[in-house]
Amino acid sequence: MAAQRLGGALVFIGFMGAGKSSAAREVAQRLDVRAIDTDRIVEQRLGCTVEEAFARHGEARFREEEERVCVEVLGRVGAGDVVSLGGGALRSEATRAALARHTTVLVDVDLDTAWSRASGRGRPLARDRAAFDALYEGREPTYRALADAVVPGSERGAARRALPWLLRLPDGVRLLWASARSGSYPVLVGRRALEADPWPAPGRRFLVSDETVLARHGERVAQVEATIAIAPGEENKTLATVERVQRELALAGARRGDHVVALGGGVVGDLAGFCAATYQRGVPVVQVPTTLVAQVDSAYGGKTGVDLPEGKNYVGAYHQPVGVLVDVGMLETLPPEELAAGRAEVVKTALIAGGSLWERVAAGHFDDEETVLACARTKLGVVASDERDGGRRQVLNLGHTVGHALEAAAGYGALRHGEAVGLGLLAALRLSGQDALRGQVRELLEAAGLPTALAAPPDLDGVAALLARDKKRVGDDVPFVLVSAPGDVRHGQAVEAAAIRAAVQELAP
Amino acid sequence: MAAQRLGGALVFIGFMGAGKSSAAREVAQRLDVRAIDTDRIVEQRLGCTVEEAFARHGEARFREEEERVCVEVLGRVGAGDVVSLGGGALRSEATRAALARHTTVLVDVDLDTAWSRASGRGRPLARDRAAFDALYEGREPTYRALADAVVPGSERGAARRALPWLLRLPDGVRLLWASARSGSYPVLVGRRALEADPWPAPGRRFLVSDETVLARHGERVAQVEATIAIAPGEENKTLATVERVQRELALAGARRGDHVVALGGGVVGDLAGFCAATYQRGVPVVQVPTTLVAQVDSAYGGKTGVDLPEGKNYVGAYHQPVGVLVDVGMLETLPPEELAAGRAEVVKTALIAGGSLWERVAAGHFDDEETVLACARTKLGVVASDERDGGRRQVLNLGHTVGHALEAAAGYGALRHGEAVGLGLLAALRLSGQDALRGQVRELLEAAGLPTALAAPPDLDGVAALLARDKKRVGDDVPFVLVSAPGDVRHGQAVEAAAIRAAVQELAP
Repeated sequence: MAAQRLGGALVFIGFMGAGKSSAAREVAQRLDVRAIDTDRIVEQRLGCTVEEAFARHGEARFREEEERVCVEVLGRVGAGDVVSLGGGALRSEATRAALARHTTVLVDVDLDTAWSRASGRGRPLARDRAAFDALYEGREPTYRALADAVVPGSERGAARRALPWLLRLPDGVRLLWASARSGSYPVLVGRRALEADPWPAPGRRFLVSDETVLARHGERVAQVEATIAIAPGEENKTLATVERVQRELALAGARRGDHVVALGGGVVGDLAGFCAATYQRGVPVVQVPTTLVAQVDSAYGGKTGVDLPEGKNYVGAYHQPVGVLVDVGMLETLPPEELAAGRAEVVKTALIAGGSLWERVAAGHFDDEETVLACARTKLGVVASDERDGGRRQVLNLGHTVGHALEAAAGYGALRHGEAVGLGLLAALRLSGQDALRGQVRELLEAAGLPTALAAPPDLDGVAALLARDKKRVGDDVPFVLVSAPGDVRHGQAVEAAAIRAAVQELAP
Repeated sequence: MAAQRLGGALVFIGFMGAGKSSAAREVAQRLDVRAIDTDRIVEQRLGCTVEEAFARHGEARFREEEERVCVEVLGRVGAGDVVSLGGGALRSEATRAALARHTTVLVDVDLDTAWSRASGRGRPLARDRAAFDALYEGREPTYRALADAVVPGSERGAARRALPWLLRLPDGVRLLWASARSGSYPVLVGRRALEADPWPAPGRRFLVSDETVLARHGERVAQVEATIAIAPGEENKTLATVERVQRELALAGARRGDHVVALGGGVVGDLAGFCAATYQRGVPVVQVPTTLVAQVDSAYGGKTGVDLPEGKNYVGAYHQPVGVLVDVGMLETLPPEELAAGRAEVVKTALIAGGSLWERVAAGHFDDEETVLACARTKLGVVASDERDGGRRQVLNLGHTVGHALEAAAGYGALRHGEAVGLGLLAALRLSGQDALRGQVRELLEAAGLPTALAAPPDLDGVAALLARDKKRVGDDVPFVLVSAPGDVRHGQAVEAAAIRAAVQELAP
């Protein structure tokens, strides 16, 4: 994994059925080389297909030959070469070691898709679903740990589109390829992410940020044409601020071929994103999130907007960024209460993801690079399946339904967004009937430095009135996101008003 | 053409290669009937194909049999039936007369597409391009005059999507099916257009209009949940007004399943459309244009937005309406200067369209239903080919480059948009070197009640500075739309600054 990758090849890894070979082929074609497929070489050496090799010689013999081939191939390839490895090749320590000087690209696939593609084709390891599932769960952590980049196997051409960044990943920077119906884009995560080459958008850069962030990180964005500063804080996430930014963009001469760089937390990302979405009917935006909330959640997925006194994010647009550059090092200068607020979104994301991310977070790893990367991947996966909140994306509102209402009832700024989300998670887990998990999350929030009760008794009627204006409301019900277990989360669940009141009342000091 | 159509069939007409038969088939399938194709019946009667009939018996004999078949079929079909007529069938007066009690649907096709689809298939009338072109030009006015509805032959499924409205067109109302990449929608034109059934959007209706229009036409929109009035005038097309409308929508409880009805002229359409585009990240909008500018131009195509002091429409979004309902009768209560302002857009559209629309307008028919319908069709055709201003759509800016700058330099409200466009057209024709056409347009503008000179000497430096901020600007040049002849208009033309100054100076009083 990439201590020195400039001399390395692009090596595609992933589970069977992910689309490694197609991804490798499309990239090789673009580079005008032939993709090297280790499975094909092993077949040549053994004089039979993989399936026949398993049947005739047994898996152990196949793996032996596979390791020999992988180590040999990975030892001789270099810059400009493209390799795809068999799904099981990474069981070999020698092969894993040989990967180190290359750029390793994981072609991502969900379990159901993998099964539907791999089964029924005579593949020896895709005959029994339970065994297949176990294999997937077993290999996934290895893939993830070795990947310098993750591209979705579901998006045809993703690897080709990601190629410019794959070829020049700054040292220690990892890439996630974000995919949504209205556009796909690179997400770079690492301390040198802002050195992105190529920069994700052409034209001149108009930096929009808040005064606090500018003082801390303003110099990090290079080649800026003009800088527009807003006052920090949710209370400034208004149409009045939008108007000021838009006028400054106009006065600075920003045109359609130029773009906005949003440097900051959730407020800056949402507001600058909305300004980009609407300036001259839309210019691109590069998101550079500087807070934990933004790095794990709000910078991805294209939701932009500002608040009205009547509701949070009541005015906005879907506008996917053209790139997201995440330097986790920026979190080091974040005030502790800001970091704590972001941890609420981390806990939420881990509850949605389950699996190894939940394990990491439950063990107290709230904000290191691995956790940020895993949270980003979870969010991108959800958005890819449902960009516009029609279905699955609503799970991201876990904890937010009550959270938004608490935040608004308290008056924006009185309760941090992340704090409100933490309290909302506790309410959602109560409504889910998950008392033990609620207890565990309560302890996690405490460990994260977050409140687990309100500072003042809740305005129950105010909260109820705000819930009645929830954007997600359909008919008379506010659909809730409920949790059965980490990783098992369902949206669109009807909940009785009395139960909601009780869950909110429980948050009283 | 539709005095009484409720008992009638759907009859598809159009030039060869338009896709009449496919449109009829997809609609028939949806209605669970078999489409009746008169060409196939003629072939059965004659015992040979159309091509063979032409060769063996000559065209006259074919037409004789065709007329017999068409009159017979149109005489017996009724509600629920679907018929497609041969491309030449409407040459027969008897056939045209037999159409009267049915709903006639023109499947529209441009000449090049028709040729590429029809030629090389042995069709007797599609062997020689020049003859083919002449036939098209000759038949087109008949098709247009007979059509109760026009659906694009280029959009697969357009007729099927238009079907709910085709089945229940109010008396005297005609339908155009608008097609754009991000969505297609019905445009109903006629005095009973507001009786649209089905209404183009589900959910509750939130009416946004200005005080003047509400007093005149507010009652025309039925079943309104809440009405939000803004102050009339371009000077109110601001983000501050957007904020007021959004807050009122929120207070009135508008949700994502509801929609906005924009009742008014260009200002209301742009502003309410932008509010719809951004309220809770987007709700549908039904446009009900009440001015000539809006009915011939601004209500179609999805451009929404508001002004900044720095530039017109500097903040906005693309948001296609879900329907446009055009009652030309509303123009009767329009103040003369408003009507005149709209005529500038009519002249612009006629210059772009050329052909019969140009002839109508050149003869002084500025604002009757036929002209409005033809202008709408022209605009929709351009938008369908290029929704986001990447290319062809820019021709719609004819007269607007200088027009916008004059309008802004004068201060919004001092010069009406339409008046500025009229002056902009004169400048554009001067820059096009079309002196005779400029003279003709000058006379037309005078006849339309529009100024052909500024009231005060132009602020040449101010105009130049504003042109330098034109949204369309690429690099150092402001691309102009220039005219070679009516119907022959090219966008993206570089023009020297000195020539622009001279063309603007010429507009001095």
